[in-house]
Amino acid sequence: MAAMMKALRKIKAARGLSMETAPVPAIGPTDVLVRVKATSICGTDLHIYGWDRWSQGRIKPPVTLGHEFCGTVERVGEEVSAVKAGDFVSAEMHVNCGHCHQCRLGEAHICQNLRIIGIDQDGAFAEFVKIPASNIWKLDAAIPEHYGAILDPLGNAVHTVFAGPIAGQTVLVTGCGPIGLMAIAVAKACGSSTVYTTETNEHRRAMAKKMGADVVINPATEDAVARILGETNRTGVDVLLEMSGNPAAIQQGFKSLRAGGRASLLGIPTENVPLDLVNDVIFKGATVQGIYGRRMYGTWVQMTALLKAGRLNLEPLFGERTTLDKFETAFSLLQGGLAGKILLYPNGVPSR
Amino acid sequence: MAAMMKALRKIKAARGLSMETAPVPAIGPTDVLVRVKATSICGTDLHIYGWDRWSQGRIKPPVTLGHEFCGTVERVGEEVSAVKAGDFVSAEMHVNCGHCHQCRLGEAHICQNLRIIGIDQDGAFAEFVKIPASNIWKLDAAIPEHYGAILDPLGNAVHTVFAGPIAGQTVLVTGCGPIGLMAIAVAKACGSSTVYTTETNEHRRAMAKKMGADVVINPATEDAVARILGETNRTGVDVLLEMSGNPAAIQQGFKSLRAGGRASLLGIPTENVPLDLVNDVIFKGATVQGIYGRRMYGTWVQMTALLKAGRLNLEPLFGERTTLDKFETAFSLLQGGLAGKILLYPNGVPSR
Amino acid sequence: MAAMMKALRKIKAARGLSMETAPVPAIGPTDVLVRVKATSICGTDLHIYGWDRWSQGRIKPPVTLGHEFCGTVERVGEEVSAVKAGDFVSAEMHVNCGHCHQCRLGEAHICQNLRIIGIDQDGAFAEFVKIPASNIWKLDAAIPEHYGAILDPLGNAVHTVFAGPIAGQTVLVTGCGPIGLMAIAVAKACGSSTVYTTETNEHRRAMAKKMGADVVINPATEDAVARILGETNRTGVDVLLEMSGNPAAIQQGFKSLRAGGRASLLGIPTENVPLDLVNDVIFKGATVQGIYGRRMYGTWVQMTALLKAGRLNLEPLFGERTTLDKFETAFSLLQGGLAGKILLYPNGVPSR
Amino acid sequence: MAAMMKALRKIKAARGLSMETAPVPAIGPTDVLVRVKATSICGTDLHIYGWDRWSQGRIKPPVTLGHEFCGTVERVGEEVSAVKAGDFVSAEMHVNCGHCHQCRLGEAHICQNLRIIGIDQDGAFAEFVKIPASNIWKLDAAIPEHYGAILDPLGNAVHTVFAGPIAGQTVLVTGCGPIGLMAIAVAKACGSSTVYTTETNEHRRAMAKKMGADVVINPATEDAVARILGETNRTGVDVLLEMSGNPAAIQQGFKSLRAGGRASLLGIPTENVPLDLVNDVIFKGATVQGIYGRRMYGTWVQMTALLKAGRLNLEPLFGERTTLDKFETAFSLLQGGLAGKILLYPNGVPSR
Repeated sequence: MAAMMKALRKIKAARGLSMETAPVPAIGPTDVLVRVKATSICGTDLHIYGWDRWSQGRIKPPVTLGHEFCGTVERVGEEVSAVKAGDFVSAEMHVNCGHCHQCRLGEAHICQNLRIIGIDQDGAFAEFVKIPASNIWKLDAAIPEHYGAILDPLGNAVHTVFAGPIAGQTVLVTGCGPIGLMAIAVAKACGSSTVYTTETNEHRRAMAKKMGADVVINPATEDAVARILGETNRTGVDVLLEMSGNPAAIQQGFKSLRAGGRASLLGIPTENVPLDLVNDVIFKGATVQGIYGRRMYGTWVQMTALLKAGRLNLEPLFGERTTLDKFETAFSLLQGGLAGKILLYPNGVPSR
Repeated sequence: MAAMMKALRKIKAARGLSMETAPVPAIGPTDVLVRVKATSICGTDLHIYGWDRWSQGRIKPPVTLGHEFCGTVERVGEEVSAVKAGDFVSAEMHVNCGHCHQCRLGEAHICQNLRIIGIDQDGAFAEFVKIPASNIWKLDAAIPEHYGAILDPLGNAVHTVFAGPIAGQTVLVTGCGPIGLMAIAVAKACGSSTVYTTETNEHRRAMAKKMGADVVINPATEDAVARILGETNRTGVDVLLEMSGNPAAIQQGFKSLRAGGRASLLGIPTENVPLDLVNDVIFKGATVQGIYGRRMYGTWVQMTALLKAGRLNLEPLFGERTTLDKFETAFSLLQGGLAGKILLYPNGVPSR
Repeated sequence: MAAMMKALRKIKAARGLSMETAPVPAIGPTDVLVRVKATSICGTDLHIYGWDRWSQGRIKPPVTLGHEFCGTVERVGEEVSAVKAGDFVSAEMHVNCGHCHQCRLGEAHICQNLRIIGIDQDGAFAEFVKIPASNIWKLDAAIPEHYGAILDPLGNAVHTVFAGPIAGQTVLVTGCGPIGLMAIAVAKACGSSTVYTTETNEHRRAMAKKMGADVVINPATEDAVARILGETNRTGVDVLLEMSGNPAAIQQGFKSLRAGGRASLLGIPTENVPLDLVNDVIFKGATVQGIYGRRMYGTWVQMTALLKAGRLNLEPLFGERTTLDKFETAFSLLQGGLAGKILLYPNGVPSR
Repeated sequence: MAAMMKALRKIKAARGLSMETAPVPAIGPTDVLVRVKATSICGTDLHIYGWDRWSQGRIKPPVTLGHEFCGTVERVGEEVSAVKAGDFVSAEMHVNCGHCHQCRLGEAHICQNLRIIGIDQDGAFAEFVKIPASNIWKLDAAIPEHYGAILDPLGNAVHTVFAGPIAGQTVLVTGCGPIGLMAIAVAKACGSSTVYTTETNEHRRAMAKKMGADVVINPATEDAVARILGETNRTGVDVLLEMSGNPAAIQQGFKSLRAGGRASLLGIPTENVPLDLVNDVIFKGATVQGIYGRRMYGTWVQMTALLKAGRLNLEPLFGERTTLDKFETAFSLLQGGLAGKILLYPNGVPSR
């Protein structure tokens, strides 16, 4: 096996990424080395590319990016028995410590000592990636192979939707980026009643329809709150799935939520959101949930079950497929507002 | 308005029912009088017709049977404001006391002083039926009118399915009578993964397929437990929905349940069931739930939401439609094992 | 029985209250008339006395105030069977409609058409008060009689504490008014681990100690967040019970909450609270609950069970006992920051 | 360090145990070696001593018994960072696989490939014991040291009590062996209302009183069901904690349970229990939970929190303290029905 590989890395504290030659990772006794088949770009990768304030505080170059991927196990450490060479896998890229209060409570996704592969250590934008065996997720043959590259964001969507009852519930999804679009499909597959969604981007609104949204609202041209209250007998929706991080959308979401409803917040606001705690939370008896990552590994089990049973059609989300070295084109398409997922193939694009 | 009406009644402590002329019920200040449009026959009605041991202990003739129905409000008592003449409605026929421990806890469906309309007092197999206003359920115009006559058993199915997580869960439904069939449809609509079902009756197995079951097993000719364990990697199903009351089916259900699974029991066994508590419940860390009636009124809200959103196709369940006085034919069809619902029309069959 | 009675009323749209002579309420068929034994003053009554902005928008004089009380049933309407003359009772003063979405879901405490006795219609600062029979709560003889006059705020405390797991949890109570003090006692009685509390008023801090708080912090002189993080191994508390409505206290509470923790908000902020949604809710995976009123009637059942079993010592909370006509003294003591409950007796103070 | 140590072992497929000299265990890279301070005898050890049917099917001699203990870390494997030599610890002795369905769902205590240290591999009745680092539980200095030897059964009790709501609930504990006695203390510490208990052994009934039971019933001389229904207004208890495995006690427990109640079953019946599924589970809408082991590691967190806060007085449970080689006396005392815990010290009894 080769000692060196191609990897897409942040090597300087500045805007941009570069294709580099780097050593194939050495693995320890409890690790697994995976040959990456397909990898996908997350919004976080865009932030790191652009070298925004958050990236400057978190990223320590040089580091290989990439935390959405699937591939084939190349070799395993001597203490690893549950995974073997040749297994087709994805992985949870959040690595938890195993001994903090949250880990002991089964809340490993909010571990106090969390490290993220592709952020805090070398990731999957490369020919090979090293993963702890416990984080490997074997993929069922019934699941379309390319779906394996987007399980990380799909897990965010499933985590958010499954954070409370969904069957028979009216739902508002604010924001139709990839995770919002996935959330629409998940909610519908799980018996939600009417799914409302708000989104200012026309292309994304069209995709929301394809993913199953019942009512698609452009809040730039229509009063979303009035529309939703009008269609729900002035009651509001049972569930708000906040996927935008946009302060106006968040406020509209809370105003559209029924008394006793659930607001599950995944989107990350970049500025302060002046919430009306008294009227929108306290008097309403509402429940507000911060959602981070994916439950380890309950969300993976749920997501796999939905996919195996063929309950989710994610095909509309997939856009271009290209080799990893064509990353500049992919990044610029996404920076332009494309909501779909572009797959990058470090070891070559397969013929379909 | 006429003072007398036709009613299908048990008038003697013996097998059989008879069409009688009875007074139109007088209503009190908090009651509602409903002109019955369509009514449906429950398995309990078959027991009362046959005058089995349970019936002999519970029924005090004379009484008008019937607790599955829909109709139009004829008039309301002077203290009633939330319902008005002309409303198209169904009703919860379990009347709770409002002040026992369970009622105060929001568990009115297991009220200590429960009375059932159509069992303990005159029911809906008649031109008119008297219902407390609080038990009236207004029907949304988006729901097919004839579905209104089978909300009582649909509520049983929804209550059972919704008694725990269902999305992404593998499910075994034991017994494909009407409620078992409805449960299959509800589970699929709410994101269940593979739905297994066991049923010895060939006609009912065919209906199970139509309602969406993925794997339909005849336990008379195949080892159901071996099949299910074989297809679930020896793990078993996440959820057992027991709809048969049959001891062998119940035992197979428990043997097919995974460690940590949920068993929701709605079927009523007529003989003792020798459960293996140690291996099937305790060592498994299983949860076993007795299910009775429908939650008042959470189940009605959930059921309505699924129906309004068009998530349930119940058409395969509907069989004959006839006038109430042709009840003998209907009862004998159902005693023969027909799983569908026959609609009886006290005030005439509408043209479709 | 006398036709007229004494009542403490708001008769003008201005500051103050006055003792008036008013007719004894006439009751309808489903109502109960109660002879008031003891009544207690809520913070809301202080706002109405002072005629603040909120009061001006909500209160329509003339109206008799008072929604915390106990007394003896004088007579009942003809449709009432579960309550009888002579019963010693308190009552839930929130009257729900019974048919809105929330009522049907068992969330009557956030009914869309809620009316409050003592706010929206005549209350218990009088010799007699009229209550719907369904809202009457019979008091067990094992519960000290005067506790019956403060079940409304105790219910707020129990509702807040019981809104999530409490046994084995570390807790922060922000604000030690009467409900905060009660919450301390309830949390300790229910197996909480360390209970921290913050309060600037010295008298209230002393009462917090008496009610069982383990660590009492004056946030005016000490960095509460640093103290709590320091004592919890930098993890933070499992549960925040927000009882102050004070923006600084709310912010400190969120900063002291562990990732994955629960924040239950009962206090009503009178100004905007700039929450750090990203760091304090989303990344933390926190759950934030708006708490309003008391669950009808689950909270009453829980509260009664704790009191019957002698688990709560509320004696430190009780201050003066006086006749209703001495209300001015009582109101001015409370406006001065007294955290205890003053009992007013419309029909005379009993000898102990 | 010595290469050999004393160990209490089952060396032949026959009744009895024997003190042997065995090698000090060698540890792997993720293991920890603990010098045992105190160890305690479980009912399971009595079964293995007696070589009953279950033991004959499960135990493969030679093996060192013992799965309740505390001690000091002697050394750790090279991959271990969260535990270090000198730490005072106990351990979860159920070793889970980490990759089965249940492990992935956070239900490791019912792992499909569970192995138990002290049953399936060498345990803690020895000077040293080898434990996987992930199973080590560090003990807080605030917890009495000898409590560390009985955390395994205390965990069973906490797991059972915490399997549903307990604050404000009436409780029946059937069976007052050590775990039943602990459950009484835990329930009271966590705000339960009246705690009833049934037990035929007089000594154990006296201990039940000491542990906080409110009503102690001898079912051999009194109708326990009649007593409990009589004291609960014919309603029954909210919660049944079944700790006996005795068929008559289980049946009494179910008959004493209220409609809508919770039955948590930990005791292991050795014969069939003819449950009345219809009346005791289905019509009652009851929830029955099989309880096995302790949640990994949620139960350990809860148990530690209660102990740190001083909420549990377990002193009445502790009996003799002696050296490990005096095991015969200890085993015969326990076989005689003693409910307390005897501590055995492999490395010498400390002076108090």
